[in-house]
Amino acid sequence: MEFSLNQVAKLINGEVEGDGEVRVNNVGKIEEAGPGQISFLANEKYEPMVYETKASAVIVSKDFKPKKEIKAALIRVKDPYMGFTDLLSEVDRLMSLSKVGIEEPSKMGQKVTHGDGLYLGAFSYLGDNVKLGKNVKIYPQVYIGDNCQIGDNTILFPGVKIYKNCIVGSYCTFHGGVIIGSDGFGFAPQENGTYKKIPQIGNVIVEDHVEIGANTTIDCATMGSTVIKKGVKIDNLVMIAHNVELGDDTVIAGQTGIAGSTRVGKNVVMAGQVGLVGHINIPDKTTIASKSGVSNTIKEAGTTVFGYPAMEINDYKRAFVGFRRLPSLLDRVRELEQKVINLAPAEGK
Amino acid sequence: MEFSLNQVAKLINGEVEGDGEVRVNNVGKIEEAGPGQISFLANEKYEPMVYETKASAVIVSKDFKPKKEIKAALIRVKDPYMGFTDLLSEVDRLMSLSKVGIEEPSKMGQKVTHGDGLYLGAFSYLGDNVKLGKNVKIYPQVYIGDNCQIGDNTILFPGVKIYKNCIVGSYCTFHGGVIIGSDGFGFAPQENGTYKKIPQIGNVIVEDHVEIGANTTIDCATMGSTVIKKGVKIDNLVMIAHNVELGDDTVIAGQTGIAGSTRVGKNVVMAGQVGLVGHINIPDKTTIASKSGVSNTIKEAGTTVFGYPAMEINDYKRAFVGFRRLPSLLDRVRELEQKVINLAPAEGK
Amino acid sequence: MEFSLNQVAKLINGEVEGDGEVRVNNVGKIEEAGPGQISFLANEKYEPMVYETKASAVIVSKDFKPKKEIKAALIRVKDPYMGFTDLLSEVDRLMSLSKVGIEEPSKMGQKVTHGDGLYLGAFSYLGDNVKLGKNVKIYPQVYIGDNCQIGDNTILFPGVKIYKNCIVGSYCTFHGGVIIGSDGFGFAPQENGTYKKIPQIGNVIVEDHVEIGANTTIDCATMGSTVIKKGVKIDNLVMIAHNVELGDDTVIAGQTGIAGSTRVGKNVVMAGQVGLVGHINIPDKTTIASKSGVSNTIKEAGTTVFGYPAMEINDYKRAFVGFRRLPSLLDRVRELEQKVINLAPAEGK
Repeated sequence: MEFSLNQVAKLINGEVEGDGEVRVNNVGKIEEAGPGQISFLANEKYEPMVYETKASAVIVSKDFKPKKEIKAALIRVKDPYMGFTDLLSEVDRLMSLSKVGIEEPSKMGQKVTHGDGLYLGAFSYLGDNVKLGKNVKIYPQVYIGDNCQIGDNTILFPGVKIYKNCIVGSYCTFHGGVIIGSDGFGFAPQENGTYKKIPQIGNVIVEDHVEIGANTTIDCATMGSTVIKKGVKIDNLVMIAHNVELGDDTVIAGQTGIAGSTRVGKNVVMAGQVGLVGHINIPDKTTIASKSGVSNTIKEAGTTVFGYPAMEINDYKRAFVGFRRLPSLLDRVRELEQKVINLAPAEGK
Repeated sequence: MEFSLNQVAKLINGEVEGDGEVRVNNVGKIEEAGPGQISFLANEKYEPMVYETKASAVIVSKDFKPKKEIKAALIRVKDPYMGFTDLLSEVDRLMSLSKVGIEEPSKMGQKVTHGDGLYLGAFSYLGDNVKLGKNVKIYPQVYIGDNCQIGDNTILFPGVKIYKNCIVGSYCTFHGGVIIGSDGFGFAPQENGTYKKIPQIGNVIVEDHVEIGANTTIDCATMGSTVIKKGVKIDNLVMIAHNVELGDDTVIAGQTGIAGSTRVGKNVVMAGQVGLVGHINIPDKTTIASKSGVSNTIKEAGTTVFGYPAMEINDYKRAFVGFRRLPSLLDRVRELEQKVINLAPAEGK
Repeated sequence: MEFSLNQVAKLINGEVEGDGEVRVNNVGKIEEAGPGQISFLANEKYEPMVYETKASAVIVSKDFKPKKEIKAALIRVKDPYMGFTDLLSEVDRLMSLSKVGIEEPSKMGQKVTHGDGLYLGAFSYLGDNVKLGKNVKIYPQVYIGDNCQIGDNTILFPGVKIYKNCIVGSYCTFHGGVIIGSDGFGFAPQENGTYKKIPQIGNVIVEDHVEIGANTTIDCATMGSTVIKKGVKIDNLVMIAHNVELGDDTVIAGQTGIAGSTRVGKNVVMAGQVGLVGHINIPDKTTIASKSGVSNTIKEAGTTVFGYPAMEINDYKRAFVGFRRLPSLLDRVRELEQKVINLAPAEGK
């Protein structure tokens, strides 16, 4: 994909200083970029490089005053870093939209419907009655079970598997190996020590603007729906169990696990390798530090917890200071015990 | 799939009260179900809803005495909740059995054999000498390596990968993305700081009635077999290393990891995110609380352990009470030290 | 694959004692092996079995002096265990090299190039401009995005997915379900509580002799490269985030996670379920015990750390001894407090 600087300036709301017809087809760091590439100058520390860069163009601040001649063309914007990432987003979006068409062999079940701009990669499988919105991009080796719905502009990367009856919103991105709608882990213990499967007949509903990282798994509900609300961002290798509900714009880092039927509020942040037991509530704006284990409902919104069992973060940190000092504390108590014995009036005197 | 109430009653050993020819094709919660759906009443709290439900039929207790007129037909059973889940299981079973046939393109190696009722989804791959039992259901994009055996009525969901030479029993269910038989993690350190791979030439044996959750991985043995005995239930994203042996009816929750050559007994329960080091023994009926790390053999059957390094659960909880109190304990010891200094007879007097 | 004992002896630098034309096609434990199999005797404890084994041949030490007649042929080597594993490695290598050819249906994009000895399994997908070295073995259902490069003798097991622009070295092995190059987890919080994706336009570079376990995920860099240097060994279900760098011959056990931009030195060893926060440095030869959480840069090379937050391992163990004794410590402090009260001169006297 190639753009003229005039086109770039339009995409990021900037002004060209130099030849607007110069064409760029890639980006690069200011110290590494070469001809055909565009870079940016956001940190003054890098200013000397703007005079030496071989990039064809550099995105700079509206207020930037060069101290020497610059060979590269400039695009002036309010915030060069934001301008640069906006450009990347825009290019990403255009490139992802550029994949269109149905590759063979792929498989469409009966009564599949889809909007314009579909990309269906080879070896992908759509079950019966699947409904796809506009501009859905399905990479190779994806599986979508019967009766699923996928909203507009959603991207499913290679190897995503979505079980039957699940509903996915618009502008979602699921990365490679994501599994949506696998059975919840429900087994009833029998008298003879074996377990009997509790049928898992619910589904998963993923609302709009949700991103899910590679090899993450989200189980279907036992009955009803496991619900991932709009704007949720989930990292890789996360496990969301049956009947969990995640509120709007909640963010979950890698390898975190949430057990069945737990409800998580809005704008919650979980760091990596966190564990939540089942059937608890996490209120809005809770922050959970990495590796914490939360085994009880948290009552107050906006708190930060840490440790396992998780406590208010400052309480945990203070207790941990004590933990580090335990060897010397044991010594001090032993010494005190000796002193107290020595202080005591000798018996039998 | 549609059933008459007479058929449903027969499936769950119940008696119809009302029109046995009414047909249902779905289930629902009593407060949400509509025409064509069947629901159940197990909890008296929901009794008022049975008089208002739009469901076509409701499964109720043999002893239930309605206080008002009920529009829905009734199916009377001993235990309505069990009756309902039995119905779901039965429908699940019938539906899974209903998928039959070989979709194209799929690939069968040389000398593959299979029983009646095979479903082989598109883009699935069977290596040479694979032996499939009766009613095996292989969803799309599954891989089964050379010389594998799969027992009767086993279901492999989309994207399951089974390496060569593995043996899977009957009535097993493997969810999307499960990997069976990948190489164990064995490398011999060399004098120059590099590692040399120890060949992993064993296999995995999975006995009957085993369920394995999405994206779980089970490595093959270095030599011999990694063994998952009958009735074991494993959740998502679990890691079972080479040469591990899991006893009958052991249950393992999400994101737990078991290192090489560890032997786990029967009816063990592991909660989520547990870790077991290699080469230890876990006796029958051990319970391991979530996030625990077990680094030594547990000697007594039937104990519950917690923490890392794991301790008997009540010992751990008592110690954790102390942990929370560490900041105040430090204060108290400081105070004691001061008091003892004050009590001591002034030196040199 | 079948070998004469003369061929085996040549592969492992040994000498045949008996009929060098006897043929073997499999290996086995000395107590279980039968005709056509080759075994080894490394531990004197098993010597009695060498006189009874039904194996066709046994690898023994140069110095081994039989006390009775042995029916099996012998192959004498310096170290029988090493000889045996060398044999296994060699057979593994030959068998993996024996898979050659392009199975249909598979998909090659435009301008794909490859060396001799390619195996491309059915349902695998190569994007445009993919460059494959010699003897690359791509199992079924693998995805390789546009512009990727894969070096000589690298094996990709079923279901591996590699996103566009990634570079993989020679003699690498990626197991089933590995995801390379998925987007890093980068989102900028917006004033209204939502998150805006930070485009992830970098790639992953994996150097030579790297092995990656099943369902492990390695994200691409935000810009630049996530780098896995030569000789690194990674176990299953590990998560390597964007812009991480792993030094030569570092070893990482299962379910460990490393957050963004962290740099790990050479010959580091991480046990299972370890977590590293982002933006820290781990020096060469650090050892990190299982389940540890490292939240700060480690300064000295060659240390071993444990716990969370991780401490020098002996400090942690000493503190944990104190933790176990906390219930009794609390009792002792209570008792001391009482004694000190009793010792204090009564007020008002």
